[in-house]
Amino acid sequence: MQVTKVALVGMGTVGAGVARLLIDHGDRTGRHAGRILWVEEVVVADPKKARDYALPKTVTLSDDLSRITNNPEIKIVAHLVGGLEPARTIMLKLLESGKDVVTANKALLAEHGPEIFDRARELGRAIAFDAAVAGGIPIITNISQCFSANQILSLRGILNGTSNFIVSQMDEQGETYAEALKEAQQRGYAEADPTMDVSGADAAQKLAILAHLAFGAQVHWNDIPRVGIDTLDAADLHYARELNYRIKLIAVAKLRDSGLELHVTPNLVKIGTPLAEVRLAYNAISVVGDAVGSIFFHGLGAGQMPTASAVVADMIDMAVGRTPITFRTVELWSKSEARVQQCDHSALPSRFYIRLTVEDRPGVLAEVTGVLGKHQISIASVIQHEPSEEDGGQSIVPLVIMTAQATEGATQKAMAEIGKLTSVRPNAVRMRVLD
Amino acid sequence: MQVTKVALVGMGTVGAGVARLLIDHGDRTGRHAGRILWVEEVVVADPKKARDYALPKTVTLSDDLSRITNNPEIKIVAHLVGGLEPARTIMLKLLESGKDVVTANKALLAEHGPEIFDRARELGRAIAFDAAVAGGIPIITNISQCFSANQILSLRGILNGTSNFIVSQMDEQGETYAEALKEAQQRGYAEADPTMDVSGADAAQKLAILAHLAFGAQVHWNDIPRVGIDTLDAADLHYARELNYRIKLIAVAKLRDSGLELHVTPNLVKIGTPLAEVRLAYNAISVVGDAVGSIFFHGLGAGQMPTASAVVADMIDMAVGRTPITFRTVELWSKSEARVQQCDHSALPSRFYIRLTVEDRPGVLAEVTGVLGKHQISIASVIQHEPSEEDGGQSIVPLVIMTAQATEGATQKAMAEIGKLTSVRPNAVRMRVLD
Ligand SMILES: NC(=O)c1ccc[n+]([C@@H]2O[C@H](COP(=O)([O-])OP(=O)(O)OC[C@H]3O[C@@H](n4cnc5c(N)ncnc54)[C@H](OP(=O)(O)O)[C@@H]3O)[C@@H](O)[C@H]2O)c1
Ligand SMILES: NC(=O)c1ccc[n+]([C@@H]2O[C@H](COP(=O)([O-])OP(=O)(O)OC[C@H]3O[C@@H](n4cnc5c(N)ncnc54)[C@H](OP(=O)(O)O)[C@@H]3O)[C@@H](O)[C@H]2O)c1
Repeated sequence: MQVTKVALVGMGTVGAGVARLLIDHGDRTGRHAGRILWVEEVVVADPKKARDYALPKTVTLSDDLSRITNNPEIKIVAHLVGGLEPARTIMLKLLESGKDVVTANKALLAEHGPEIFDRARELGRAIAFDAAVAGGIPIITNISQCFSANQILSLRGILNGTSNFIVSQMDEQGETYAEALKEAQQRGYAEADPTMDVSGADAAQKLAILAHLAFGAQVHWNDIPRVGIDTLDAADLHYARELNYRIKLIAVAKLRDSGLELHVTPNLVKIGTPLAEVRLAYNAISVVGDAVGSIFFHGLGAGQMPTASAVVADMIDMAVGRTPITFRTVELWSKSEARVQQCDHSALPSRFYIRLTVEDRPGVLAEVTGVLGKHQISIASVIQHEPSEEDGGQSIVPLVIMTAQATEGATQKAMAEIGKLTSVRPNAVRMRVLD
Repeated sequence: MQVTKVALVGMGTVGAGVARLLIDHGDRTGRHAGRILWVEEVVVADPKKARDYALPKTVTLSDDLSRITNNPEIKIVAHLVGGLEPARTIMLKLLESGKDVVTANKALLAEHGPEIFDRARELGRAIAFDAAVAGGIPIITNISQCFSANQILSLRGILNGTSNFIVSQMDEQGETYAEALKEAQQRGYAEADPTMDVSGADAAQKLAILAHLAFGAQVHWNDIPRVGIDTLDAADLHYARELNYRIKLIAVAKLRDSGLELHVTPNLVKIGTPLAEVRLAYNAISVVGDAVGSIFFHGLGAGQMPTASAVVADMIDMAVGRTPITFRTVELWSKSEARVQQCDHSALPSRFYIRLTVEDRPGVLAEVTGVLGKHQISIASVIQHEPSEEDGGQSIVPLVIMTAQATEGATQKAMAEIGKLTSVRPNAVRMRVLD
């Protein structure tokens, strides 16, 4: 059987899974690629570190990238180093030494995509990155290949398993944010510094990549409006449930007449709809295409073996020649003009959930609804709960309002104005309600 | 931009959708294939027939297949004629005249796959067929490409939208089987002769194709044990719901130590699990791979545009060269030995739902459970309903039993024996309960 020599840079969580699949299960690549993907070199930061996957003696483990870049027999490299540097430099060196590269590093692509893809094109090289978004769910291949006859109309997804795990634990186990975060860290879902995950930044990076692929948008991830789950209050999970909703961190890309709607925010999602039922660290994506209709994917968005599954599939696609074709035809992050512009966030319509803490006295509801009315915001329902607390001698109550369709801008302005009412306490909450 | 000439044989439901996507939305194929797919010829049975999609004057509509087979400029043909003949002959003529072929005809592949694929390989041609299974859900590409690093462990799916629609209508609208079937026909989901759909044959054909791809099984669809929904009784939908289940026609392929478990039968599926929530004419598939874990797909399994979406994606993959690679590497229906044998159906374990109509008198339950016990079948729960009918002066009651894990064979034997008890009326029901 034909042999294609490959190498790994990085053998941490994902890299060890990739090594295991390539080395212990070579029969699979043989069957699907009609050839063996032979691991020739593995390069890591510290070759002396203890590892849970023991490489066979045939593979050299070193910290010397030139063993790969100087070996012309190695055609394909899995780049499994996280972060921006030295990940970016490693990527460029690999491309410049003639390697096709498979990566799982979404941060690198979201930040340096244009530079890296341009360089790859100049050099006639290809990059595959299905593992970078939604781990085991092959959303990149599905969008760039399987739905190519469609105009994609919208993408909505739960793209960050850590956030979903934390919110699920808060919702189902009654844990506080801090407890749920700690559990996520113990289970290996969240890193020591969980900021990227819980702030919505990681989901925004993935959304930027998907928006690029699906819509030809050229949006930097940091320009995508985002709200994380780090400020989520258990009370809102409770009130949402009363209204028959769950709260989920949802990434949205939706084509509108005015451009592309893009954001990552906690949303109220109707119980019983597919996205509401996504539990624990699972990811899910709902794609609507004008021909195919609505397609829903659900699976493990991270973790060693699901991510390795995606990396190895990409390596096989690279070895047999499918990825280079896709890479040439899809023109990702090319210098060609963006096909769509991000639309004005403040003009975006949605229904909203609003929770206020107000003084329990006559006239307060009228004041609040007066401000909403002034901003053309209709109210769909109001739930005023029993007085629960005393605040400086004044009993205060939570007031939960569901609006009819209103714009981001109008609700923001109304909230600012409501915040100034003497009868309203600080920490008002406003969340989108998913259609 | 480069041009690839293509043709269509068949312009019925699916063909008209394909023509529309290729002709009215040529920009998409331009964007994803880097070239135009130019429709040169359309061949149908009756060119004079009125059609809802009007072809532009540049396209010749005829009933003369030789206009395609004799035109060497046409590289790719969408074969969208149903049934076995003349579909088989058309397929062979297309391959023999040097065309790569995209088809949506699962019956043709399930019946004549070995002959057709062997011929294509001999001739160096390729066949793509993602539209043949689950319409808009790209399950073929996902299994043969995206999950190639996995040993697939199981596939479970709702692969026949017509059956699912009928059962959903019976369950949710309280319609009888006959009423629901009529509505399915009015909506265009079921054909005048619905036998293939409602007998489970269509789902078995799709399962045979998937089992081939995912497990290297070489099983003829007619050797897959199947039960349709055509004998489903509304009473069982009702009792299932009482037990917190819905009934769904489920196709299963599962790797066991003893071989490959394969069947298409109505199953009790726990409410709240993804497959139970598949409504109307939707399809869904749950794939478990040893690396990727469980991945769930949900989408439209048929209909003009979802199916056309899959056909055109395949035509693009063919034009850019991806499909020929996959076709060569996947070795579908090749002469190589089957990698797995179908396992003994009678030895397969499952929990079962059993409904009997029994005489309402002391000792009957003991007789029935005695027979089950003799066959080593443990009972998980029994629901004995109120007497509902009189039968020859004797009041009779429905008796619903949920078993613990038991084998197909033991439950079949027990049912036969129970059927002979004088206290038990005919028409006993036995259904699998999905894990
Ligand atoms: N973990 C997941 O579930 C998951 C899911 C999707 C995507 N990803 C992405 O996959 C990538 C890898 O993630 P991971 O979880 O496997 O990370 P990890 O466990 O931290 O492993 C990183 C690897 O990179 C190596 N490395 C660091 N600096 C290096 C250098 N200068 N030269 C060579 N090797 C270097 C490390 O070497 P040592 O082993 O010697 O320290 C380690 O083997 C990241 O971009 C991540 O975002 C991860
Ligand atoms: N409909 C769906 O939702 C769906 C979904 C998945 C897969 N499929 C599969 O797709 C295939 C096509 O389905 P369909 O619903 O489009 O069928 P259809 O509406 O019955 O169309 C069949 C087409 O084949 C043409 N045809 C028949 N005999 C021919 C011959 N000897 N030479 C040339 N053309 C001939 C017919 O010509 P005239 O127009 O002149 O009669 C018609 O255009 C079938 O295999 C079906 O199983 C369909």
